[in-house]
Amino acid sequence: MNKSRLEAFSDGVFAIIITIMVLELKIPEEASWHSVKPLLPVFICYILSFSFIAIYWVNHHHLMHTLRRVSAGVMWANVLLLFCLSLVPWATGWMGKTNFERVTVAVYGSLLISCGLSYTLLGSTIRKTYKNATKLSLAVSKDDKKGLISTILYGASIPVALFVSPVISACFFVIVSIMWMIPNKAIEEALSDE
Amino acid sequence: MNKSRLEAFSDGVFAIIITIMVLELKIPEEASWHSVKPLLPVFICYILSFSFIAIYWVNHHHLMHTLRRVSAGVMWANVLLLFCLSLVPWATGWMGKTNFERVTVAVYGSLLISCGLSYTLLGSTIRKTYKNATKLSLAVSKDDKKGLISTILYGASIPVALFVSPVISACFFVIVSIMWMIPNKAIEEALSDE
Amino acid sequence: MNKSRLEAFSDGVFAIIITIMVLELKIPEEASWHSVKPLLPVFICYILSFSFIAIYWVNHHHLMHTLRRVSAGVMWANVLLLFCLSLVPWATGWMGKTNFERVTVAVYGSLLISCGLSYTLLGSTIRKTYKNATKLSLAVSKDDKKGLISTILYGASIPVALFVSPVISACFFVIVSIMWMIPNKAIEEALSDE
Amino acid sequence: MNKSRLEAFSDGVFAIIITIMVLELKIPEEASWHSVKPLLPVFICYILSFSFIAIYWVNHHHLMHTLRRVSAGVMWANVLLLFCLSLVPWATGWMGKTNFERVTVAVYGSLLISCGLSYTLLGSTIRKTYKNATKLSLAVSKDDKKGLISTILYGASIPVALFVSPVISACFFVIVSIMWMIPNKAIEEALSDE
Repeated sequence: MNKSRLEAFSDGVFAIIITIMVLELKIPEEASWHSVKPLLPVFICYILSFSFIAIYWVNHHHLMHTLRRVSAGVMWANVLLLFCLSLVPWATGWMGKTNFERVTVAVYGSLLISCGLSYTLLGSTIRKTYKNATKLSLAVSKDDKKGLISTILYGASIPVALFVSPVISACFFVIVSIMWMIPNKAIEEALSDE
Repeated sequence: MNKSRLEAFSDGVFAIIITIMVLELKIPEEASWHSVKPLLPVFICYILSFSFIAIYWVNHHHLMHTLRRVSAGVMWANVLLLFCLSLVPWATGWMGKTNFERVTVAVYGSLLISCGLSYTLLGSTIRKTYKNATKLSLAVSKDDKKGLISTILYGASIPVALFVSPVISACFFVIVSIMWMIPNKAIEEALSDE
Repeated sequence: MNKSRLEAFSDGVFAIIITIMVLELKIPEEASWHSVKPLLPVFICYILSFSFIAIYWVNHHHLMHTLRRVSAGVMWANVLLLFCLSLVPWATGWMGKTNFERVTVAVYGSLLISCGLSYTLLGSTIRKTYKNATKLSLAVSKDDKKGLISTILYGASIPVALFVSPVISACFFVIVSIMWMIPNKAIEEALSDE
Repeated sequence: MNKSRLEAFSDGVFAIIITIMVLELKIPEEASWHSVKPLLPVFICYILSFSFIAIYWVNHHHLMHTLRRVSAGVMWANVLLLFCLSLVPWATGWMGKTNFERVTVAVYGSLLISCGLSYTLLGSTIRKTYKNATKLSLAVSKDDKKGLISTILYGASIPVALFVSPVISACFFVIVSIMWMIPNKAIEEALSDE
């Protein structure tokens, strides 16, 4: 009961964040192929952030599945995650508008780290609420390795963007994104067992 | 449980996409019948896209009804569909603002094809998750014929818009839209049987 | 099952329409009481439309309670109602921005008539889906008298706005709004009986 | 049934209000650390309002848990609360854009009082709908003391902002915000008992 409302609110925020980003894709004044061209970087950023938010939604979904009891800690950790994610449209718009300028890519990378950390916090807060680990909760916690790789790549993306090349940082983001899209067999199995 | 959250998230995104489009209907500075006139093409596009999104929602609703188990494949096919649909407000706004210019109508037609293909992908991914076809799943898959006609008309709309007349393409869109609004008796029956 | 998703989608659209209107309340550049003054008509329109959407939500809620089976007709009548309501933010913004100019008040009145008619259509479509009237469905259909008075006042508001005074029309809207806020005892009773 | 829809609608509005505020965080034209600096006050206001809306959501959640029967009174008290909260993005944007100018801080404080009063009204309306107080309802009503302190601090923030210093008022807001984030042990216990 409690839990379903936490999910409903989170789903609402996820849905709005993912859709609000499209408003940054400004409508060109003219009707020509030429006028669409400057939108290309904004569009690439949109695809990137859309997949990030979708990944967080899918993972959030699995994580909530392991939740037994909603505590105040879980609620506030969830609010913190939603807060970090709510800044993604802004960082996406900035990176797209300035065509992957160094500073904006570094800011985007830092924001992704914050999202990752607050997600880890939510995960560990949820794990504290139950005594016995289920097959699903074990499978979900296996994702921590993916989380670690992501954090390292996000962390590396900041100096790389500032001092080497923002394009390489963007590639890091794409790699992380693809890595998360590969389904976790253990979770799939645990879910179909339940 | 799993499934209900997939629906909740999708419903949220559908609801936002369908409502966000109205923001393209700019409020005139003056209070005269005259100042509303330039809004007419934007308004027509809004009606068109509103009915397309509503049709997708109704169909999505039937399709999800046949779903037994949420797999990673279903989740990502659903995300892809929502991504394509999220671009509809942008394409709608462009087509309306430029008063059905050739290029914008062709882009709108291409976007509708992408939406149609990702919907077909979602349908076939869902069909793979169950062994025995139910009466409803059979009825839903009958819609594939409608889907084929739509894809042909969308496909035709692109060269027609570019080389003949964008107005004829727009008529194609209206025909497809009306075709989908005619209720599918087989689905109705299967649903009331359940 | 079916019905809950119809409600979830409608609730989403209602929630977005009611909240999107506040975006018309522009943020003043300066920080003085003086700079807030021109926002007053926009704010009054916001209160008016907020209460209208809230009234429709409450009534929609009662109406859906009487629904037994979701048919294609119910779905499309619901989509039509949501379409009409989705135009309310635009009409509200226009009326507020132009400080209740004749034309805008007449347009607002016409839109309210469209909303009322599509709501009546949804009600009669729902009534057709069941054979035996329940206590609640009878109580809900009693609201038809209120609906008739509303339609007459909305209808009167158009010529009054155009040829007499838009302020009198605005008063009509307030009267209708207050009339609907008075709870319908019969519905309350029928609901607590269930 | 009834209640779940009230929650769904409220959750939708909460989710939109909390996410719409980020649109006030304008995307800088340039890509430099310097261009982000003027956004700082807007960002601080965003954090503040985000936590206020989140607090209201958490409390609304507890309050609704004690609700047994949805009456017309509860519905309209809930609509009034959502109306007050829907103005928060506007007041937040104004306060941020003008860098905590006296008038805007006073307006923000007044709005928080309105939100608080309408929440108290909702609470007392809900309490009237049941005869016997449960452990949870008692725990929730204990929050009234927190509510009183909040109202006093909000009330004090208005003259303080106008005649002393808007920064001190902003500190009051932060104190109230932190006070509410401390979990109420009694509610936690009552919830886990159920």
